[in-house]
Amino acid sequence: MTDSQKISRRAQAVAPFLAMDVMAAAAAKARAGDSVIRMEVGQPSAPAPRAVIAAAQAALADGRVPYTEALGMPALRARIARHYAETYGVAVPPERVVVTTGSSAGFVLAFLALFDAGARVAVPQPGYPAYRSILHALDLVPVPLVLRRADRFAPTSALIREAGDLDGVLVMSPANPSGTVIAPDRLADLCATTKALGLPFVSDEIYHGLSYGVPTATALQFDADAVVINSFSKFYCMTGWRVGWMVVPEALVRPIERLAQNLYISAPYLSQVAALAAFDTLDAMGAIRDGYAENRNILLDALPGLGLGETHPADGAFYLYADVGRFTDDATAFCRRMLDEAGVAATPGLDFDPAEGHHHVRFSFAGSKGDCVEAVRRLRAWLG
Amino acid sequence: MTDSQKISRRAQAVAPFLAMDVMAAAAAKARAGDSVIRMEVGQPSAPAPRAVIAAAQAALADGRVPYTEALGMPALRARIARHYAETYGVAVPPERVVVTTGSSAGFVLAFLALFDAGARVAVPQPGYPAYRSILHALDLVPVPLVLRRADRFAPTSALIREAGDLDGVLVMSPANPSGTVIAPDRLADLCATTKALGLPFVSDEIYHGLSYGVPTATALQFDADAVVINSFSKFYCMTGWRVGWMVVPEALVRPIERLAQNLYISAPYLSQVAALAAFDTLDAMGAIRDGYAENRNILLDALPGLGLGETHPADGAFYLYADVGRFTDDATAFCRRMLDEAGVAATPGLDFDPAEGHHHVRFSFAGSKGDCVEAVRRLRAWLG
Repeated sequence: MTDSQKISRRAQAVAPFLAMDVMAAAAAKARAGDSVIRMEVGQPSAPAPRAVIAAAQAALADGRVPYTEALGMPALRARIARHYAETYGVAVPPERVVVTTGSSAGFVLAFLALFDAGARVAVPQPGYPAYRSILHALDLVPVPLVLRRADRFAPTSALIREAGDLDGVLVMSPANPSGTVIAPDRLADLCATTKALGLPFVSDEIYHGLSYGVPTATALQFDADAVVINSFSKFYCMTGWRVGWMVVPEALVRPIERLAQNLYISAPYLSQVAALAAFDTLDAMGAIRDGYAENRNILLDALPGLGLGETHPADGAFYLYADVGRFTDDATAFCRRMLDEAGVAATPGLDFDPAEGHHHVRFSFAGSKGDCVEAVRRLRAWLG
Repeated sequence: MTDSQKISRRAQAVAPFLAMDVMAAAAAKARAGDSVIRMEVGQPSAPAPRAVIAAAQAALADGRVPYTEALGMPALRARIARHYAETYGVAVPPERVVVTTGSSAGFVLAFLALFDAGARVAVPQPGYPAYRSILHALDLVPVPLVLRRADRFAPTSALIREAGDLDGVLVMSPANPSGTVIAPDRLADLCATTKALGLPFVSDEIYHGLSYGVPTATALQFDADAVVINSFSKFYCMTGWRVGWMVVPEALVRPIERLAQNLYISAPYLSQVAALAAFDTLDAMGAIRDGYAENRNILLDALPGLGLGETHPADGAFYLYADVGRFTDDATAFCRRMLDEAGVAATPGLDFDPAEGHHHVRFSFAGSKGDCVEAVRRLRAWLG
């Protein structure tokens, strides 16, 4: 490596997103003609709702696919604001809605707007790995909130108070990989605690709409200053469209607009036009969620008998996070073998938890029922 | 503003991208029913090539719009690699091609992979404002290479050597806003200089394909270690699709993959599928470039007579960067009045040059011939 190819320290601090690595390996295996059940990425196998696709088709027929305003198309910002009134009874002015290039951009924008280098930001562990990696890339310090089975893997005010000096707190509900939903009164408590401590509160609500018999709340019901991050990817089956949104306090709108202008220009146009149609497809999406509920039951019924019994709550989202300690202490090698030998792609726990991930695996059940049944059959044959 | 709404210092250091602000104002004026000639954003008025739209339509009909590999769809990476062989006679292995969410993501990924906080990166002035802003957001230090009329506003090895301690150099050709094309032998010289100084060399080639009678070269012809950033936005009229690419040295591929996995997941799927069809539309795109050449002549013929005579080279790209010092010392107010009173949207020079921008304005001629003619008519009436 020559001098001009030195890698920055911060890039070296960014761990690979193993789910993406497994995805690349699974895609390569599938391209080679092998049968692979894809349970490695949080990606619904259902297509986007018909109305969403129709909206994109109409826009394409017109031919113009321009940049939009950096904060997003005004009509989409207004529609998202209306969603908060309709779904949660919370008044959110459209001016505080920011359309983003997926929730990924939401995290980058929130972290850059809120935190300077060295700031300590509490994030759940196990948790979505990109939190930690984005924080590292931006010279911020992730402080793990080590979740406890006794709390059903929900973050608590006690954990926040015990975390030492903090500059901000991020929580997620329903959570990835645990599926834990923070009960509304506990979320209110977290909002009150961070408010009392003077800490910005970032609430990742990307799996809202996907829960199984438990109530969910948005942080905006309890704290108008919360930074809420969401996306069309999960509930609306729009992963590859790369479109999401944030709701931010008034004071953050202009700083985030300046950052978005320069770092993103705008979210993809077709995806914004398509997303505008998404909110009117609640019925179709409810049927898809019912399918996930069925998949969830299939896995919850079968996995304990295969020795994958110690699972996290799975109140919501579409993951089962299972302890594979009975089989291995190296979940990464385990997942590699599972892909090679059983043709089932899943994500090793190190993505989500540097401490305990080595004996956990995350299975996504956002695929079809047939895939879930076949995955159980293959795992039974492979583990048996 | 409460404690929890503090804005980070780095976000405060990011200047607004005035072109985007003018765009928002122009869009609002147009929505209100006023006639506005849009010359403020670097956005072709022509739609994407027919084959590109057809490819997106076919993908939409299929319905699946998934994440892709973080480095991009393998077929698209291979097609981009082939483009370098066909267009420049340079062998680029597909493994060194990274598909990005527009060139915007290319800059973020390159800067994060190459530079740690405090690194000093030389960027041209006048130049694309997002360079400076992204560097500020990532705690990097933009070092202006103050371009000189005597050099036709091209960066030179002398400017790099005089810039003091540097950790990297970025240049752009054809340039925004000047239009300057760096002659191939001068580009070779810049590559040799940065190589001798051990500095990473980032070459923004987003306007390649758009030049008017002058030869252009890619940095890869002279330096296999150069980081090249490009996009489908400009030449292929695909701005709102948000898809671009980088070519990076072997050693940077994996660090950039890890960053991309975590910060972007992947570029938009439909845009990647569509982009795959773009390279086979050279003829149609050549006709569009000929249209820009005509627009350029209209402006170059008319503007001097209106007192906007001192323009930058406009060898390539689709901008005329004009000195408005005869009329104002506040180009931002001038542009606001031009939009309000003449219905012509253009970008104040402060976007591109904090030192001399206050008496410059950038006009984009990527619109239709009719728009250019009408803009000249309106400007003549307004300035006359």
